[in-house]
Amino acid sequence: MAAGMDHVVDAPGEAATGLQSHEDLGRFTVATDLEPGQKLRMVKFLSYGWSSQRSLPAVTDQVEGALARARHEGWDGLVAGQREFLDDFWDRADVQVDGDPELQQAVRFAFFHILQAGARAEQRAIPAKGLTGTGYDGHTFWDTEAFVLPLLAYNLPVAARDALRWRHATIDLARDRAKVLGLAGAAFPWRTIRGQECSGYWPAGTAAFHINADIANAVIRYLDATGDDEFERDYGLELLVETARLWRSVGHHDAEGRFRIDGVTGPDEYSAIADNNVYTNVMAELNLRRAADVAERQPERARALGVDPEEAAAWRDAAAAMMVPYDESLGVHAQAEGFTDHAVWDFPGTSPDQYPLMLHFPYFDLYRKQVVKQADLVFALLERGDLFSDEEKARDFDYYEPLTVRDSSLSAAVQAVIAAEVGHLDLAYDYFAEAALLDLDDIHHNTRDGLHLASLGGALMVVIGGFGGIRGYEGEIALAPRIPDALTRISFGFSFRGRQIRIEADHRQASYTMAEGDPLEFTHHGDRVTLTTDGPLTLPIPRMPQRERPRQPPGREPARRRFTAPKS
Amino acid sequence: MAAGMDHVVDAPGEAATGLQSHEDLGRFTVATDLEPGQKLRMVKFLSYGWSSQRSLPAVTDQVEGALARARHEGWDGLVAGQREFLDDFWDRADVQVDGDPELQQAVRFAFFHILQAGARAEQRAIPAKGLTGTGYDGHTFWDTEAFVLPLLAYNLPVAARDALRWRHATIDLARDRAKVLGLAGAAFPWRTIRGQECSGYWPAGTAAFHINADIANAVIRYLDATGDDEFERDYGLELLVETARLWRSVGHHDAEGRFRIDGVTGPDEYSAIADNNVYTNVMAELNLRRAADVAERQPERARALGVDPEEAAAWRDAAAAMMVPYDESLGVHAQAEGFTDHAVWDFPGTSPDQYPLMLHFPYFDLYRKQVVKQADLVFALLERGDLFSDEEKARDFDYYEPLTVRDSSLSAAVQAVIAAEVGHLDLAYDYFAEAALLDLDDIHHNTRDGLHLASLGGALMVVIGGFGGIRGYEGEIALAPRIPDALTRISFGFSFRGRQIRIEADHRQASYTMAEGDPLEFTHHGDRVTLTTDGPLTLPIPRMPQRERPRQPPGREPARRRFTAPKS
Repeated sequence: MAAGMDHVVDAPGEAATGLQSHEDLGRFTVATDLEPGQKLRMVKFLSYGWSSQRSLPAVTDQVEGALARARHEGWDGLVAGQREFLDDFWDRADVQVDGDPELQQAVRFAFFHILQAGARAEQRAIPAKGLTGTGYDGHTFWDTEAFVLPLLAYNLPVAARDALRWRHATIDLARDRAKVLGLAGAAFPWRTIRGQECSGYWPAGTAAFHINADIANAVIRYLDATGDDEFERDYGLELLVETARLWRSVGHHDAEGRFRIDGVTGPDEYSAIADNNVYTNVMAELNLRRAADVAERQPERARALGVDPEEAAAWRDAAAAMMVPYDESLGVHAQAEGFTDHAVWDFPGTSPDQYPLMLHFPYFDLYRKQVVKQADLVFALLERGDLFSDEEKARDFDYYEPLTVRDSSLSAAVQAVIAAEVGHLDLAYDYFAEAALLDLDDIHHNTRDGLHLASLGGALMVVIGGFGGIRGYEGEIALAPRIPDALTRISFGFSFRGRQIRIEADHRQASYTMAEGDPLEFTHHGDRVTLTTDGPLTLPIPRMPQRERPRQPPGREPARRRFTAPKS
Repeated sequence: MAAGMDHVVDAPGEAATGLQSHEDLGRFTVATDLEPGQKLRMVKFLSYGWSSQRSLPAVTDQVEGALARARHEGWDGLVAGQREFLDDFWDRADVQVDGDPELQQAVRFAFFHILQAGARAEQRAIPAKGLTGTGYDGHTFWDTEAFVLPLLAYNLPVAARDALRWRHATIDLARDRAKVLGLAGAAFPWRTIRGQECSGYWPAGTAAFHINADIANAVIRYLDATGDDEFERDYGLELLVETARLWRSVGHHDAEGRFRIDGVTGPDEYSAIADNNVYTNVMAELNLRRAADVAERQPERARALGVDPEEAAAWRDAAAAMMVPYDESLGVHAQAEGFTDHAVWDFPGTSPDQYPLMLHFPYFDLYRKQVVKQADLVFALLERGDLFSDEEKARDFDYYEPLTVRDSSLSAAVQAVIAAEVGHLDLAYDYFAEAALLDLDDIHHNTRDGLHLASLGGALMVVIGGFGGIRGYEGEIALAPRIPDALTRISFGFSFRGRQIRIEADHRQASYTMAEGDPLEFTHHGDRVTLTTDGPLTLPIPRMPQRERPRQPPGREPARRRFTAPKS
C-alpha cells in the first residue's frame, strides 16, 4: 500500500504549503491570520495505491504520479474529469423507471454502487459487499459473476474484463484446489479473498461447483458483448478450458450414455449434494460447449494449454448428452433428480418468526424437503432460457413459486425477471421493489454490514431483463419489453460490440435507438428486426394474456407495491 | 462410585488383618516375620459399584454386601461360583470350529470378550470397545445392537435385555433430540456415552437414522428369542412405538403412494444424505410393522403411550408402501436411489497406500461415486433376508462385492455371512478369518485402543449365521448349515424361548440336539422339521453348485486363509 497527499492552501499570505510524502501522512499543519470576512480554502489531494504483486516503489510511483496529475489539473480539473466520466456513464447506462420515483431513485442508487464497486477494482476481487461494509468478511462469491458482471459487461465492459482477469489471476490456486479434490482443471472457491477456498462447510461451499460455470458464463457473456479477441486468447480461453476440464471430471456418462453430474449443490442453499441439479447441468453444458468453440477459434493458445481435438470432442459429447431431470407426471423440471418426489415443506405449520428457516431448522430437515431458499431452477430458466419453451418456463415458474421462501437476497430479482417473462408483471413489480429497496429500506436489518451488491445488480436486471426482456444467448440479442401497470415508461441503454443502444418502452410500444456502430439484428418479441444509426425503430408491444398470480409460501409473499407519488 | 476391599492374611503369627472402608483404599500394611520355606498368602477382596442414578449410600451398601458375601464364601467359593457361571455359559454357547485351531481360539476369544462386555453391564451402555480400551472415547454406536446383542439375545438373554433397558433409560433424551430435529418420536444418538448425540458431523451422524431401526430390531430379536412379555410391555413397546413414530415423520407417502425416506445416511459411510437407502427402508419397514403388532398385543400400555388405531394403521400403511429401489437394467438393488447410476470409483487408479480412502480423498468425491466402505445393501440381505429371493441375494452380493473396500471393521463379517449363504464358502472363510483375527493380529494397527467388539461379534455371526446358516425372521427359526472345505466340523448352541439347542455340522450332515423345552419347529435347508428332547435329529446337507468367486477392488481382496496346523 502506498498513499500520498498534496495540499494546496489558497489564503492570504500563503501561510504554508508542502508536499507530504507517504511517510508523514497527516502531519500537515496550517497557521495563518484571517481578517473578518476573509476565507481560508484548503485543497487536499490524496492518492491511494495497493497491489499484492507489484513492488512498493512501483506502487509509490503510481501514487506520486496520480498526485502530480492532480496538482497539474487542480481540483477543478479533477472534478471535470470525474464529471465527464460519470456523464458518459449515465448517458449510456442510465436506467429510467417512470411512474415510481422511489424506485427510480433506487435503481440509480443501485447502478451508482455497482459502478463504485467495479469501476476501479482493477483486477482485484469485487466482494459481495463491494467496498461498502464488512459483511461476509470481505469475501467474494458467485454473486459477482452472476449479478454484478452482467451489468458491467453491457455498460462498462472494461470493468467486467478486469474482474474476470482477477479470477484468472487466481487460476493456479483453483488448479491446486481441483487436484486436492481429485478433479481435473480448476475448481474456483465458493468464497474467497485472494483465491483460496475459505468456506468451512463443504456441502454448501465446495460442492456448489456451479460457481465454475458462472465464471465461465461471465467470460462468455463478456466475449459475446465485446468480441474482445485479445481477452479471449489471453484469459478467456484458459478460464473456459480449465472449467470445462473440471466439469468433464466431475461428471460422467452413465450406462445409457447420459452425462450426469452427481453429488453437487446448486444455487438453492436449502438443498445439497444432489444428483443432476438442472441449473448446474445446463450451465456446465454451456461451459463445455463454448470451451470447445473457443479452443477451436484460438488453436495456437489451445494447443499451448494442452487441448487436443479428442479433449474438445469429449467436452462436446458431454454437453450433448447432458442430463436434465424432468418430472413427467407433474410436467415440470425437477430442481435436481428426485426433488419433486420429496415431501413439501410444512409451510402452513411454519410461523413467520421461523424465517429465515436456516436459523430455526436443521439442514437435515431442509435438505430432504421441497423448500427453496433462492431461485435455482428458476435461475436456470433465465441463464439458459434458450433451452426451455415458453410453456415449460410458465409451468416451472408456477411450480417453484409456492416453494420459494426467499431467505436469500439473491432470489427476488431472478424471480422477478422470469415472472415478467411468463406474464406475471405485477408480481415482477413487487419483487423488483423488494430487490431495489433491500438496503435502502434495510429489509434484512443488516444494511449496516454493507450493501447487497447482488440485490442491487438484480434490481437493475429486473428493469433490463425483466421489463426490457433482454436476453443474450449464443451471441444473439433478443428483446421483449413489457412493463407493469404501475409504471408508465422504462428506458435503459447497453453497449454491444461497439454499438451503443438505448431502449424506451411504454405500454404500447418500444423504441430502439442506436448512437453508433454497425446495424444490429435482433428480435423484438420474437420478430427479427434490424436497427441502424439512421433513426429510432419503434415497434408495437404485443398484448399478453393475463395469467393467474401464483401463490408464495404463506407469509412469504412479497409486499404489494402500492406507490403513491410524494406530494410536491 | 464406591469400592471396598477386604483382606485376609493367612500367615504365621496373623501379622495384621483388617477391613478397609472405601475411604482408605490402599492403606493396608502387612508386617510379618517369615522363616525360610514359610509362605505368606494374602487374599484381597475388592468390590466395585457405580451408578448414575442410585445414591452413594445405596451403592456403598451394594459394595459392602458384595464384600460380605465374598468373606462368607471365601476365595474358593468365589472361584467356584465364577467357574459355574462360565461352565454353564460355555456349555450352552461354545462355538467350535474344527480344522483351524487358530480360528477356534479366536472365536472363543471373541465370545469371552462379548461376555465380558455384556454380562455385567447392568443397564449401562456397552461401548464399541467394551471395557477393553479408550478407542472411540468410550462411545456407544449401533455396533452394539447390530453386532453384539444378536449373540447375547440367543446366549445370554438377560444381558441383551439389560443393554436394551439402558437404551430405554435414555429415551427422554432421544425424544428431545427428535423434537430438535422437527421429528416425532425418539431419535437415538449416533454416538453417545449417556444418551446425548455426541457426533459433530451430522451427514454421517444424525442422518444415519438407521440406528433407530437397529435398536428396534434388537428389541424384536430379543422378544422373538425370549417371549419376555414383561420386557415387551414395560420397555420394548415404548422403544418400538417411539422409533416407529420417528420413521413415520422422517418419511412420507409420495404422489404414487410409495413411502419414501429421503435425505438419510445408511450404514455405508462412503455415501451420505441419500434417498431411500434400502437398508434403512427395509429396517424401518420392520420397525413400523412390529410396533403396530406389539401395540395390538399390549393395548393398555399402548393407550398410555397415546397410540390409537389410526396411528398404528398409519405405521402399517407406511410399512406396506415402503419404497425399495431396484435397478431394472442391472437387475440389482440400488443401495439408495440413484446409486447404481453413479460413477464407479477409480479402483485401478487407487494405490494400496491410499486406503482407508477417507484419509486420502474428500467426502465430496466418495459420496458421489459407487464405492462402499462397509456392507450396506449386503447387510440388508442379512437383516431382512426374508424380503429377498435367493437369486436376488446372489446377484446383489456379486454386484456390491467389487465396490466394497472394507475400510470399516463392520464389513467383513457381514460379507462373510451372505457369501456363505449365496455359495461363496471359501470367500466367507477368508472374511471369517479377517473378522476373527482383526485384533489378535492387529490388522488395523489399533488393537492398543481396545478390541473391536463388533468384529468379534461378527466373527461369531459368521460361524452361526454364515456356516450355521441360522436366521430368525418373524419369530421363525431357519437353519442351513454348510461349512467351507477348510473346516471339518462346526458346533454352536443357542437358546430359544426356554429351549436349549446345539447344532453340529460337517460336510455331509447336520445334527440338532435339544436339552430341554417344548418341541421346536424350524426349517433345515428349507425343509420343515421338528426337534424334540427325545434325541438328536440328524439331517443331510444338500449340495450347492460352486459359484464363481466374485472380485473385490484390486488390493482389497481378503487374505486367502491357508491354515496349517501347528506342529505338535
